[in-house]
Amino acid sequence: MNLALLGCGLLGGSLAAAWRKSGRVASVSGYDVVPAQARRAVALGIVDRAATTVADAVCDADCIVLATPVGSMADLLAELALHASEHAIITDVGSTKVELIAQARAVLGGAFARFVPGHPIAGGALPGIEHASADLFQGCWVITTPQDQTQADALQQIEANWVACGARVERMSAQDHDRIFAAVSHLPHLLAFALVQLVASQPDGARKLRFAGAGFRDFTRIAASDPAMWRDIALANRSALGPELAQFREHLERLQAAVDAGDSQALERIFSEASRVRRTQSFGADGGNHDV
Amino acid sequence: MNLALLGCGLLGGSLAAAWRKSGRVASVSGYDVVPAQARRAVALGIVDRAATTVADAVCDADCIVLATPVGSMADLLAELALHASEHAIITDVGSTKVELIAQARAVLGGAFARFVPGHPIAGGALPGIEHASADLFQGCWVITTPQDQTQADALQQIEANWVACGARVERMSAQDHDRIFAAVSHLPHLLAFALVQLVASQPDGARKLRFAGAGFRDFTRIAASDPAMWRDIALANRSALGPELAQFREHLERLQAAVDAGDSQALERIFSEASRVRRTQSFGADGGNHDV
Repeated sequence: MNLALLGCGLLGGSLAAAWRKSGRVASVSGYDVVPAQARRAVALGIVDRAATTVADAVCDADCIVLATPVGSMADLLAELALHASEHAIITDVGSTKVELIAQARAVLGGAFARFVPGHPIAGGALPGIEHASADLFQGCWVITTPQDQTQADALQQIEANWVACGARVERMSAQDHDRIFAAVSHLPHLLAFALVQLVASQPDGARKLRFAGAGFRDFTRIAASDPAMWRDIALANRSALGPELAQFREHLERLQAAVDAGDSQALERIFSEASRVRRTQSFGADGGNHDV
Repeated sequence: MNLALLGCGLLGGSLAAAWRKSGRVASVSGYDVVPAQARRAVALGIVDRAATTVADAVCDADCIVLATPVGSMADLLAELALHASEHAIITDVGSTKVELIAQARAVLGGAFARFVPGHPIAGGALPGIEHASADLFQGCWVITTPQDQTQADALQQIEANWVACGARVERMSAQDHDRIFAAVSHLPHLLAFALVQLVASQPDGARKLRFAGAGFRDFTRIAASDPAMWRDIALANRSALGPELAQFREHLERLQAAVDAGDSQALERIFSEASRVRRTQSFGADGGNHDV
């Protein structure tokens, strides 16, 4: 198939490289809101042709991938409604699904049946297409959230592309997806951002950070993530993130009571359960990937 | 000097190995509440003589190091009041200082002047003396919190031991110490324990954890820590941890309002400040140590 890649960053670049390596993609046109990014993708051999407009990128495409921050996907979908060919399958790699699907439903018209919402649980320690890898998705989960209208053939083709590059595909409802990732991805990001910002803003913040060790480093690693991207994710998924955050705050209220009262048993129960769960599970595909 | 090591775990074992390697320690006797641990320390060549009682361990010691969980240090100090020789310097590696110093003041009598409270900001990915390393403290911070009564010579000797094995020593008040580590160590541990326990206890917890990626893995790595040790730390430092947790909860209340209202600007401001701080600082001594 001929692929149009909209957004030439780490995730999109890795997808194009992986799908091409698997033999399921013959050619790739690339568009990025920063034209130099698309040219860089060509220089790296990941994209064959740098397009200067969305219309130009998608004119010959059998498959169109949205790989931009979720906040900019609605505008792209509106352009696809005008310019995508009638048979083109559309998919995305966004971290939130319910709002994006509603936007797609509103603007795609008949093409909505060929939209396959997707989310690969993968990423890299370093951003940018220069760190893209055809092996990024080996062993990773890819979630698809098809709708009643989604064409079976379109869904099958996208899922086959992911399986061909070593990913494990799981279908679920968009609501389930957003609730799951609110809890295990979006909320931890929010907490890490919040802690770093709070400590840094305290009068003795610089001194505190000076003595922070490896525990703080790992806990806050995700706070180095792109703020605009995570603002978009938090907003796009606020209907699931809000309740998860509220539940966590109630949990912290109980912990505060235990700390203030010196309630040894309550603290040990919570810490023990957490430690047991954390020791018996491994997370991430290969110990090295950084999901978004 | 002749060292008595009370608590033969990763940190104590590394301290004994590091201080001996630096040439400042000639012999090491070791005691552990689990006798097999002290024998293991001998087998590893870190301890010369496994003692079966605290009294036996400290009888010939010029320097006594408390390297047990902070919750058990008060009992050890009471034994030292009876058994330590009159010239022996006493120090510790505990993560909290104010409460321990009060306990030491209450039980040590005249020996309190030779007690040098200390806290090396180091640890290892894996617990136990079999993972001890003489190089663990290279480049690490070691905090000392001397009191008005602390003998200058005792303080100087302990600090010189740390410097000799590559650590950077910083003196501060015990109150400052406890506030700093409440913010950058104890609170993050509490939050990581709380998130893992909350998610695991939800009806769909197992499914959520199944799809958790590398971000969740790093954020919650410290939730695999020893629950009893962290219960002790949280309790021993609750006068500093309580207010830090309360401040964080107020911060989360503001974040909740921003998420629920879809306040893009407030979210981006917090995320941007955090991201900028987190990107421009490095934490931990060598990128590999795990502090407690």
